[in-house]
Amino acid sequence: MSALNATHDPQLRSWVESANAEGAEFPIQNLPFAVFREKGADGTARCGVGIGNQILDVGQCVPLFDGLAATAAEACRAPVLNPLMALGPEAASALRARLSALLSDGQLVHREVLSRALWPIDAVELLLPARIGGYSDFFASIHHATNAGRLFRPDAPLLPNYKHVPIAYSGRSNSIRVSGAPLQRPWGQIKAPDQAGPVFSPSQRLDHEVELALFIGAPSTPGVPVKVGEAWKHIFGFSLLNDWSARDIQSWEYQPLGPFLAKSFATTVAPWVVTAEALAPFRVAPVARADGDPQALPYLQDAADQASGNLQIALDAHLSTARMRERGLPAQRLSRSNAATLYWTFAQMVAHHTSNGSSLDAGDVLGSGTISGETADALGSLLEITVGGTQPLHIESTGEARTFLQDGDALSLTGRCVREGFVSIGFGSCVGVLAPASPPVV
Amino acid sequence: MSALNATHDPQLRSWVESANAEGAEFPIQNLPFAVFREKGADGTARCGVGIGNQILDVGQCVPLFDGLAATAAEACRAPVLNPLMALGPEAASALRARLSALLSDGQLVHREVLSRALWPIDAVELLLPARIGGYSDFFASIHHATNAGRLFRPDAPLLPNYKHVPIAYSGRSNSIRVSGAPLQRPWGQIKAPDQAGPVFSPSQRLDHEVELALFIGAPSTPGVPVKVGEAWKHIFGFSLLNDWSARDIQSWEYQPLGPFLAKSFATTVAPWVVTAEALAPFRVAPVARADGDPQALPYLQDAADQASGNLQIALDAHLSTARMRERGLPAQRLSRSNAATLYWTFAQMVAHHTSNGSSLDAGDVLGSGTISGETADALGSLLEITVGGTQPLHIESTGEARTFLQDGDALSLTGRCVREGFVSIGFGSCVGVLAPASPPVV
Repeated sequence: MSALNATHDPQLRSWVESANAEGAEFPIQNLPFAVFREKGADGTARCGVGIGNQILDVGQCVPLFDGLAATAAEACRAPVLNPLMALGPEAASALRARLSALLSDGQLVHREVLSRALWPIDAVELLLPARIGGYSDFFASIHHATNAGRLFRPDAPLLPNYKHVPIAYSGRSNSIRVSGAPLQRPWGQIKAPDQAGPVFSPSQRLDHEVELALFIGAPSTPGVPVKVGEAWKHIFGFSLLNDWSARDIQSWEYQPLGPFLAKSFATTVAPWVVTAEALAPFRVAPVARADGDPQALPYLQDAADQASGNLQIALDAHLSTARMRERGLPAQRLSRSNAATLYWTFAQMVAHHTSNGSSLDAGDVLGSGTISGETADALGSLLEITVGGTQPLHIESTGEARTFLQDGDALSLTGRCVREGFVSIGFGSCVGVLAPASPPVV
Repeated sequence: MSALNATHDPQLRSWVESANAEGAEFPIQNLPFAVFREKGADGTARCGVGIGNQILDVGQCVPLFDGLAATAAEACRAPVLNPLMALGPEAASALRARLSALLSDGQLVHREVLSRALWPIDAVELLLPARIGGYSDFFASIHHATNAGRLFRPDAPLLPNYKHVPIAYSGRSNSIRVSGAPLQRPWGQIKAPDQAGPVFSPSQRLDHEVELALFIGAPSTPGVPVKVGEAWKHIFGFSLLNDWSARDIQSWEYQPLGPFLAKSFATTVAPWVVTAEALAPFRVAPVARADGDPQALPYLQDAADQASGNLQIALDAHLSTARMRERGLPAQRLSRSNAATLYWTFAQMVAHHTSNGSSLDAGDVLGSGTISGETADALGSLLEITVGGTQPLHIESTGEARTFLQDGDALSLTGRCVREGFVSIGFGSCVGVLAPASPPVV
């Protein structure tokens, strides 16, 4: 678990002036990682660090680093974050500490080297941050599980295993693409309740899911479970994730082996990975476990985790329809939920995932599952917002209505950490614009 | 779809004499691929081809090949089959045709080069054949689906979607290891029917599943579904697969998102990949779709596929307990089933998998799901053989009994294609020996 250190100092300011702006997502206290290359060019992809409205090409500044920080800086020359992630938290922390010092001290000799390695974020293309070998998606929000369950089982929305098992399924790694990448309405088998058999058609119930992606750093050892209290040693950081879901495909295919094509057509992740260390000031106690709930089994229990295992991250979903964009109208917020309300902590997810001997590799993603809160303005999917498509959402500025997403809709996620006495940090954005389904193939 | 050609000629014999032995698994008509290195040494892994009791280091013989075959032979220098797989069926076919000629002609100059590249299979270590990015496991045997379903729903064993949807779930790629690799009884959450809550303990209902692994060759294009009639262009070949399953973990965790830790602790694949082309003589019409069954939706229909889309592969599972091995007793056959009885063809699996725009990469694995037949001697899992653990299996030679696997049990799969007028080919073996669970961690 990352402790607070000099990099969290709220007094710290950078000589990169945009980092000090009110509301900046990437102040010097954040320093998130991303993979980038020059826009439009066939430039080499490499790892960078966000500072204000700039991205620093870390691998170009290796001579400014020593020891473990230099090893970490060299790892940033790779076209994916996996080598840096694999080095573990001490290396990322050493790199971050030195970066924090370099970007704040303003020593002319350093500043010159660094300035040559800074690119305006607007001038670069941000890529998928890691080669994602394994992708598991959890179901850690009890509010989401209850809301979704209620649509199927009004009297017993939550299944008996929920408060014992951090439920998850394996997703398809190659479905994960970076924010802004093409997104198309999928075809699939759909069976209407009043029809005897299914048809093959474009999904009519395409939904978003507000999630966080946990990126694994130091790999775990095959056959050796990670204890809850050790889990943060394997957590590199977090991004925003949208687990697009075709609800009509899902409801027909999911028995008995779970969702498959309803999810595998696309999953969008934000390019910026905010480190576990940068998030240290925003750790809070999990609150969703109620007094009468069963105790977690010992392999999922850790006192420190129960004291500060959740992350206080406010997550917003905004919808912008094609008409809204044509008219220059601002996006409408669909929800604001918070990762602090998750029932299962990220450390519990890691411990559960490895409890059977299964191992985690650097760059693997663990999705949180849809993050919903208790209130109507904190629902992380249209399924929940429209109560299974029965109560359309009203778009105020245009008079449009939505049950599920329509072609041309742009859905964006943002995230923000705020705590009194600390500088607020952000996650960039995770955007997908829905293109129409392909023409029929048969 | 591979047509019959000179490589299938039953008269063809190799100058590698062991390939001509009665019952040889790797006659010259097979030529399966594997990845190997010298045993015990830190040798370089590379791709080879099985011939009799030898493996040919193909990359060492590149000068004997021309054109596309030479490109394919060069790809065999990689430590995984992915580069060869990615070249597509024409390249593999060209390589196979030339290998077939070289290994049968006995021209002294060729024979000398090839002989220097032959290793006794006993003298090498066989490795995982590919870097497996994506792993999906189907449920294509209607007999297995019915048998497994009956344990939960005696009156309606088959779910309504079964005859419409080639059901599958995403598995965990890094769980797949090669035959003979360590296998350990997993821990997990288990809830006995008569208990109020779960306990965390070693699985008591550890099972095997007789499956085939389909290896993807030429990748598909993201966003572009593969038609059933084009699917074989993306199929490189097949191996034996054992999808170890902890039934007690599975029954507690699988609602509502499907199996997760019950499967992800280990999956064993045979080292030998038998090419789609070598299997061409053994293609048969699917027989499991009954007259009254619904027609497959158009995107899953293809006349040629319905005429010859299944593979006639007899699959045996053998159990050898520690006591049997101590006493030098032969393994007991648990089942003999046949891939010909699958309800869904492999081409339908590929078409369904990509029907939502999801893409397949070279080296990806599609598991068939447990392959069971209609009769009691053709059940591909202990769950089915022992009717959910209620009717113990009798081990004849030792008087032991089994409901599920016990520590020290060795489970091996073998596969064999037989057809009048053609030389029989085999798949090698897929073996796992179950080690006891680790000591408790908490």
